[in-house]
Amino acid sequence: MTMQTYPSANDIVQAHQRIHLYIHRTPVLTSQTINQLTGAEVFFKCENFQKIGAFKIRGGMNAVLQLSPDEQKNGIATHSSGNHAQAIAYAAREVGNQAYIVMPNNAPEIKKKAVAGYGAEIILCEPTLQAREDALNDVVSRTGAAFVHPFNDYHVIAGQATAAKELLEDTPALDLVMAPVGGGGLLSGTALSVHYFSPTTTVVAGEPEGAQDAFLSLQQGKIVAAPYIKTIADGLLTTLGDKTFPLIQQYVKAVVTVTDEEIIAAMRLVWERMKIIIEPSCAVPLAALIQTKEAHAGKKVGIILSGGNVDLGKLPF
Amino acid sequence: MTMQTYPSANDIVQAHQRIHLYIHRTPVLTSQTINQLTGAEVFFKCENFQKIGAFKIRGGMNAVLQLSPDEQKNGIATHSSGNHAQAIAYAAREVGNQAYIVMPNNAPEIKKKAVAGYGAEIILCEPTLQAREDALNDVVSRTGAAFVHPFNDYHVIAGQATAAKELLEDTPALDLVMAPVGGGGLLSGTALSVHYFSPTTTVVAGEPEGAQDAFLSLQQGKIVAAPYIKTIADGLLTTLGDKTFPLIQQYVKAVVTVTDEEIIAAMRLVWERMKIIIEPSCAVPLAALIQTKEAHAGKKVGIILSGGNVDLGKLPF
Repeated sequence: MTMQTYPSANDIVQAHQRIHLYIHRTPVLTSQTINQLTGAEVFFKCENFQKIGAFKIRGGMNAVLQLSPDEQKNGIATHSSGNHAQAIAYAAREVGNQAYIVMPNNAPEIKKKAVAGYGAEIILCEPTLQAREDALNDVVSRTGAAFVHPFNDYHVIAGQATAAKELLEDTPALDLVMAPVGGGGLLSGTALSVHYFSPTTTVVAGEPEGAQDAFLSLQQGKIVAAPYIKTIADGLLTTLGDKTFPLIQQYVKAVVTVTDEEIIAAMRLVWERMKIIIEPSCAVPLAALIQTKEAHAGKKVGIILSGGNVDLGKLPF
Repeated sequence: MTMQTYPSANDIVQAHQRIHLYIHRTPVLTSQTINQLTGAEVFFKCENFQKIGAFKIRGGMNAVLQLSPDEQKNGIATHSSGNHAQAIAYAAREVGNQAYIVMPNNAPEIKKKAVAGYGAEIILCEPTLQAREDALNDVVSRTGAAFVHPFNDYHVIAGQATAAKELLEDTPALDLVMAPVGGGGLLSGTALSVHYFSPTTTVVAGEPEGAQDAFLSLQQGKIVAAPYIKTIADGLLTTLGDKTFPLIQQYVKAVVTVTDEEIIAAMRLVWERMKIIIEPSCAVPLAALIQTKEAHAGKKVGIILSGGNVDLGKLPF
């Protein structure tokens, strides 16, 4: 089954039905301290408590479940150093097929261990995009495995959209929903769910200043790369794709860029006051809300907390 | 109103009704990873998400609400470097009276700031028990404030008992409930709730080897001090009191001592796999369960996660 155009409301509803037995319906938490600090009423959708510790399992699981038995019988392959690697490894195990994960040889041991723990075969490569793509093509040629892209895939986008769908179902009417943006899978899915299920709600993204391709792409009306990549938010380094960018252009009101100092402060605030662990990339939308709080005073704001996979040996505080 | 004997079932039920509007009913979380690791089915009562970040608000709030208007009109005083300080500061503010908190002059800035943030007056003293008690007596003489002891007080014990009461209400029938032990307020309250509301359930405590007064006191049948105090679990340094010890003797089956290495490993496990922040003292019962897992295989185990107030600048990993 192929989705020719971008996901419809029904595609997202079906994705949700398809994956819901494989994922957690994560809680929505609030914090009086953060409400006081921002002047808004903030609802945090805690995908840091999701299977594999991040929202990525939603899109990965949906994409894998959309593969026909014939398409997936030789396994499923992807390249990722981060949460998508774990998502595909987990999803492949759930459907009983082999996962092949291309990872850069400088990926943290803990992430390699998690991927291997789900039974995936890891193929190490040099830490460049070219080396990753070459290694992926090699493994696909060798095995006949199906490739699931980390974000530029409508099944992945429909899966990521289910986080915002749940958030909208579990909260009072929101004025604003915020999500981080890297390749744009979560953001475009979030924007679609809000468009379909709560059309008067605005969507705003947070992006690291040190990886500001989405901000510049929206400004220039075409996909451009970030002028430089230097940020602690290691899940948001990627450039938008040709499937995610048009959705973001159409359905996202603004991208707010934040510095690493703002990201670390927001991350620490959540750790200290909410007592939950979020990774740096996950703190980006809250950092963006704090930066722009005058514009959102008194509003009901949903924030997708994207994940909690952080190396405790390398904390920024 | 004075409780002449230790809290009855009805005292605990009334304490719960008295404080419930001031506290969170904290969630009970589970982790498949920890279930696999321990061989048990573990239910974590998340008091790290409680008001002030720890269970202590339950006992502090109950004790303060039990003071007559006349008893509390000159304020409420205590000595504590930890979570009880915040509990009394918070509770006093809720009833509109002044709190006076004696704290050692080496208490972390962040804890002093939190106490001051609730409007309490902080009285600094030398970091010895004698200096604390002298400073407390001074402030009580000067102000006429009412003293609320951190644990050796039946109203405090009845308040702490409400955490286990909620846990028992929100989980399937448990075989075992575990809690940490310092002065014994939480442990004796937990043991009472289990005795009244789930009498076939066993209660076992976790205690740091470097502050093992409860273990030795049970062994010797009288309150004894730990032979040495050296542990990362800074909330569990105190010796049992004459109100908590008899309850623990009667209703707690065993105290399991754990090393700091075991405490840190359990703390890290919760951070990494459950994505929630717990303080070292809070990891002690899980460390005890892991140490004794062969004895508890297949059982349903409730663990009270006591708090999440940790200095992020001084993590043990």
